[in-house]
Amino acid sequence: MSNKAGIPQGTRDFNAVTVQKRQYIFQTIRTVFELYGFQPLETPAMENLDTLMGKYGEEGDKLIFKILNNGLDNPAKKDQIIADFDKILEGKNNKGITERALRYDLTIPFARYVAMNYGQLTMPFKRYQIQPVWRADRPQKGRYREFYQCDADVVGSHSLLNEVELTAIYATVFQRLQLPVEIRLNSRKILAGLAEQCGGLDLMVPITVAIDKLDKIGLEKVKEELLQKGLSQSQIDLIEQYLNIQGDHTQKLAQLTTLMGNNPTAQQGIDELAYIIQYHQQKTGSTLVIDFTLARGLNYYTGIIFEIKAVGAEMGSIGGGGRYDDLTGLFGVPNVPGVGISFGVDRIYDVLEALQLFPEAVQKGTKVLFFNLGEAESQRAFALMQDLRERGIAAELYHEPSKFDKQFKYAEKKQVPYIVIIGSTELNAGTCIIKNIVSGEQTTISQNDLANQLF
Amino acid sequence: MSNKAGIPQGTRDFNAVTVQKRQYIFQTIRTVFELYGFQPLETPAMENLDTLMGKYGEEGDKLIFKILNNGLDNPAKKDQIIADFDKILEGKNNKGITERALRYDLTIPFARYVAMNYGQLTMPFKRYQIQPVWRADRPQKGRYREFYQCDADVVGSHSLLNEVELTAIYATVFQRLQLPVEIRLNSRKILAGLAEQCGGLDLMVPITVAIDKLDKIGLEKVKEELLQKGLSQSQIDLIEQYLNIQGDHTQKLAQLTTLMGNNPTAQQGIDELAYIIQYHQQKTGSTLVIDFTLARGLNYYTGIIFEIKAVGAEMGSIGGGGRYDDLTGLFGVPNVPGVGISFGVDRIYDVLEALQLFPEAVQKGTKVLFFNLGEAESQRAFALMQDLRERGIAAELYHEPSKFDKQFKYAEKKQVPYIVIIGSTELNAGTCIIKNIVSGEQTTISQNDLANQLF
Repeated sequence: MSNKAGIPQGTRDFNAVTVQKRQYIFQTIRTVFELYGFQPLETPAMENLDTLMGKYGEEGDKLIFKILNNGLDNPAKKDQIIADFDKILEGKNNKGITERALRYDLTIPFARYVAMNYGQLTMPFKRYQIQPVWRADRPQKGRYREFYQCDADVVGSHSLLNEVELTAIYATVFQRLQLPVEIRLNSRKILAGLAEQCGGLDLMVPITVAIDKLDKIGLEKVKEELLQKGLSQSQIDLIEQYLNIQGDHTQKLAQLTTLMGNNPTAQQGIDELAYIIQYHQQKTGSTLVIDFTLARGLNYYTGIIFEIKAVGAEMGSIGGGGRYDDLTGLFGVPNVPGVGISFGVDRIYDVLEALQLFPEAVQKGTKVLFFNLGEAESQRAFALMQDLRERGIAAELYHEPSKFDKQFKYAEKKQVPYIVIIGSTELNAGTCIIKNIVSGEQTTISQNDLANQLF
Repeated sequence: MSNKAGIPQGTRDFNAVTVQKRQYIFQTIRTVFELYGFQPLETPAMENLDTLMGKYGEEGDKLIFKILNNGLDNPAKKDQIIADFDKILEGKNNKGITERALRYDLTIPFARYVAMNYGQLTMPFKRYQIQPVWRADRPQKGRYREFYQCDADVVGSHSLLNEVELTAIYATVFQRLQLPVEIRLNSRKILAGLAEQCGGLDLMVPITVAIDKLDKIGLEKVKEELLQKGLSQSQIDLIEQYLNIQGDHTQKLAQLTTLMGNNPTAQQGIDELAYIIQYHQQKTGSTLVIDFTLARGLNYYTGIIFEIKAVGAEMGSIGGGGRYDDLTGLFGVPNVPGVGISFGVDRIYDVLEALQLFPEAVQKGTKVLFFNLGEAESQRAFALMQDLRERGIAAELYHEPSKFDKQFKYAEKKQVPYIVIIGSTELNAGTCIIKNIVSGEQTTISQNDLANQLF
């Protein structure tokens, strides 16, 4: 193998089977998005560096793939370029070297698009976007440097009906994928209220950061962390009571109301959850779960937050989202609220694979292979094949008059279910032999009946 | 407008209408590719720099978008990085700065893939690939820095049946797009024969380069160029006779046979064209044209070459391709022959737009907007809407109980054909008002009849 024939770490080639399975996931999600009135948007793979830098935190900035400006091999520019390049080393602006970067997520390009087109868009604006993003993360199992994101957002509306709709989209998509999931809901307002009850909003970050780790490290370690963060035993007790709330929707909300006293922020969050529950229609496969331990790391969420957990699969969240107050402020258009959800397509793929939930029909291949048994025969076969294709049947004619077994092997390797044989005898008789490779069964029929036989 | 909210020169955002029209083109081509037994392949946006450099000529190398390595803001690396950077200025290897680059076309990544997986692939291997590519070209009308390519190739077979199939694919795709085209064919072997008749194969490049310009500069200028290139008057006369060959397929091939005497190379090309013609089935809209003035710039073509011209549109070629002898030699797997075609999707889009050939149905939007007239009303509307969505009807519920005209405007702007109104009267009566926005016609029906009414 030539050492040239490799691909960059953390990237993947997708062969036919994989592409088709991924298309099945994309198409299922796309169809549901459009049933709910969301419209597609596609943005360029590259954005101006300014658009991306500073939006993902210091760590995020480091993981953005930057694109080298062209024309750098121009000696005339050397000094200026070296100077600019020194700036990279100082982490400063470095336009001489790089002005563009690869999309790191779909949210910032969407915000940039909304800001650019704000006047023209019909509000509330509902868009979905299914495109790859690139991150210079350390590649590891299940983490890639190129992967697809699949987002739906509504901007320009504070209405909770949007959260209701997005919850229904999750339920519908996973019902169609026949993948049982828990749709977990919480509200950042409840977490804010908890922080207030603990003594102040300034405690919200340490509290949510600690709660966020509950699945991984367990309650005791969470309490230790809170202690280290300087929370008092009574505060930690309150948080423990909060985390231990159990029961059905009504019981949970009632217990929380009691626990939170009359904290108005928490009460808002509780009312919002109650509103969504009342609208929610149970769909086969999906369960709506109120999960007070759900925190979502991202600080820009301000209201309802979502997370999707596949049932019966060893896998982290396969989707998530939430409400945010200000999408486009960074791009000069303030006060555009919104709410959005995302599907983790790579993880959904792995779960469907593990649970063997991909339908057979997803793998569309050639249905009929015509054997090639000479010039006159293949001309006849070609005409018949074109007729099948006109009727939507994928068909091939073997490319040369090779030995039978060679043509057989080709059909087997490509898992073609039917082969059609037209030798000199059949050519003269106007017939053809049709053989089902799976059953081995074979019959001679009139060439005119071939199409009907295959439907 | 904040100056941050812009996109890089030569890139585009695609809004819903544009995405849907583009999907219509992609889907039409994809469907035909699969009917012909071609299977999808997707490769990463980034390739190793080694994979791409030196494959597109000196000019091409300059137009490759290179990706800056990460971690360059590490002062410890400074000296090494500066040294590496100096190498960029000398146009040398510069791994310290950049090891990856963006895909420049789909052919080289395909070749890289075939070389990497040669043992596993079933030959002949038929793949199609529809993905964006990136080029640091000077942006201008109809030329972008990010654009889609749409290729189908067969590798591992010398059989002319592949050329027959690819010709049929072109005819079928443009028939389905209802776009009249000329499928122009020639053979590099004929051009080689012409060069031999003119005195030697070394004349092939100057001759093809000159002929390639015929459309743009005209016969006289082509002759001047050939003269400057040092061809004799008698050689130029031969080329002029060649370029002036007219008539139907048979006449053209007969005249060429005479003109080329017994030149075996040319005769091979002539026989190959005759073979393809004999298989070709006329499809509505497409005409097969033997075009001896067709040369195709690319030197790696060795046999039949294709070019597609839209009829009745001011537009260059909207597709092209040809046969090549050695796809993967550069990646250590020699002697893999193949033949491929490509569709120029951006140009096809512009032509379909100009000739207004996009079907109405391409623009799928929301079909029904439920007005929001209060909490109880919207809960009823929501239930009805979910029923419509289950049946595949795209529907929306206005996000808040606003004034009638505001909800109307939303429906109009989004071109929603039907609105459904459930006020307190209808709620109690179990009815709803359904209004066709286009005709203005409105009727009150039972809520149970709504779905049937809309089918």
